[in-house]
Amino acid sequence: MTLKKGAFILMEYTVYSKDDHKIIDTTVEEKAKEGGIFNENSKYEPELVIIGEGMLFKSLEEELVKLKEGETATIELPPEKAFGKRDPSKIRIISARELSRRGIIPRVNEEVEINGQRAIIRSVGGGRVTLDFNHPLAGKTLVYNIKIVKILKEPSEKLRELVYRWLKRALSRKDIKVRVREKVITIILPIRILSVENLGIAIRGIIRDIQRYFPNVEKIIFREEYEFPRKEVERERKQDRSPKDTSKIEEESSKS
Amino acid sequence: MTLKKGAFILMEYTVYSKDDHKIIDTTVEEKAKEGGIFNENSKYEPELVIIGEGMLFKSLEEELVKLKEGETATIELPPEKAFGKRDPSKIRIISARELSRRGIIPRVNEEVEINGQRAIIRSVGGGRVTLDFNHPLAGKTLVYNIKIVKILKEPSEKLRELVYRWLKRALSRKDIKVRVREKVITIILPIRILSVENLGIAIRGIIRDIQRYFPNVEKIIFREEYEFPRKEVERERKQDRSPKDTSKIEEESSKS
Repeated sequence: MTLKKGAFILMEYTVYSKDDHKIIDTTVEEKAKEGGIFNENSKYEPELVIIGEGMLFKSLEEELVKLKEGETATIELPPEKAFGKRDPSKIRIISARELSRRGIIPRVNEEVEINGQRAIIRSVGGGRVTLDFNHPLAGKTLVYNIKIVKILKEPSEKLRELVYRWLKRALSRKDIKVRVREKVITIILPIRILSVENLGIAIRGIIRDIQRYFPNVEKIIFREEYEFPRKEVERERKQDRSPKDTSKIEEESSKS
Repeated sequence: MTLKKGAFILMEYTVYSKDDHKIIDTTVEEKAKEGGIFNENSKYEPELVIIGEGMLFKSLEEELVKLKEGETATIELPPEKAFGKRDPSKIRIISARELSRRGIIPRVNEEVEINGQRAIIRSVGGGRVTLDFNHPLAGKTLVYNIKIVKILKEPSEKLRELVYRWLKRALSRKDIKVRVREKVITIILPIRILSVENLGIAIRGIIRDIQRYFPNVEKIIFREEYEFPRKEVERERKQDRSPKDTSKIEEESSKS
């Protein structure tokens, strides 16, 4: 079976540069640590890919869609199918004075930004600086180890992923509850989401995504719940007294 | 009837200084314009007062609670019942050099802040500056014209006011829908509230207020709804065709 355009996939991947075997990017924590690129502010977990949306290199996606849930594959992408070949015309020599006028002290291997374009400083000497405007991964053959962790089929699973990808920094997947009822979508979030900075941007993103992938939906309801913790304490106390008869306790507390 | 502690009142007021008849503060737009203190970023509308919460001067509140809904009163507060008498020991003379060391160029009648305390510059001359640390309204007899616009009795009315006072800058009262069902409170807000800066502070304030004034409530639900505008257009089109039979249109669109 080939996955169709619009399919929602949770994918795990690690990408190496073929020549030096250096890990470039990964969704797996131990691989990040192994490759020396671990960042404690990042989340290492399977990522959402929607087929046909240009989220992956085309030739990577072409291999991906042949896989089944749980399957792994190693896919090699030559430079022309990844970040392109190295272009010698993108290497330019400028005077060190020109750089210092822009407030840059040139150091070899450092990345600088010149007129909105990024370059790596390849050499410094004799008042001249060699700048390489090629993408840092241009000319590299990339090796992807990928795994299809899950193919999402339920509308509610897809919806949760769409919400999650906008709120990743603040929440985990399990914090998000969703309901899809005909033309109304309800998204239940923890109360602390209301303290997130720039929440409006995420909300607009979620609304746009829902409009795109659930075109029949007419209404979205966001819902955040707050329960007073005091009540929890009371419930626990009651449970301490008769720990087995939970159903009765629930009844009691809802009457009181 | 005397209003009791905890009563919720919507009050209109204008406060003058008795000696010079200058308007100091008001909830009435035309009074603000008349007094030359109109600020287009302010909202001129009745304000929530909860009796016994120290929101008003004690002697003002004592008069207020005797009033009925719709009644007005003029209440005079001598300095000792308002911002206090003027205290001569709060007038200090310092060297102009001392001020300029703090980056202040002294100008008569301007307000400055020294070590967190506010002062008005009364005079400048001979290298000396006279600073008055008295409250600008100290020594003044204040005249309040007040009106009890409404005494709130319904829990839902009270709740809306508690929500509104935290979200004033972003919303108007009519944007807020509330439901009080036994131990669960639902607050329905427009979707744009999610773009408000520092929303978390307002939400925590609302939760604290609800805990204080609705102590039996166990759960608060915040709900924001978004309707795709496209559907509105369709509905309008249908309405254009048969503008009188609205009920049928609603039925049709909910089936389609």
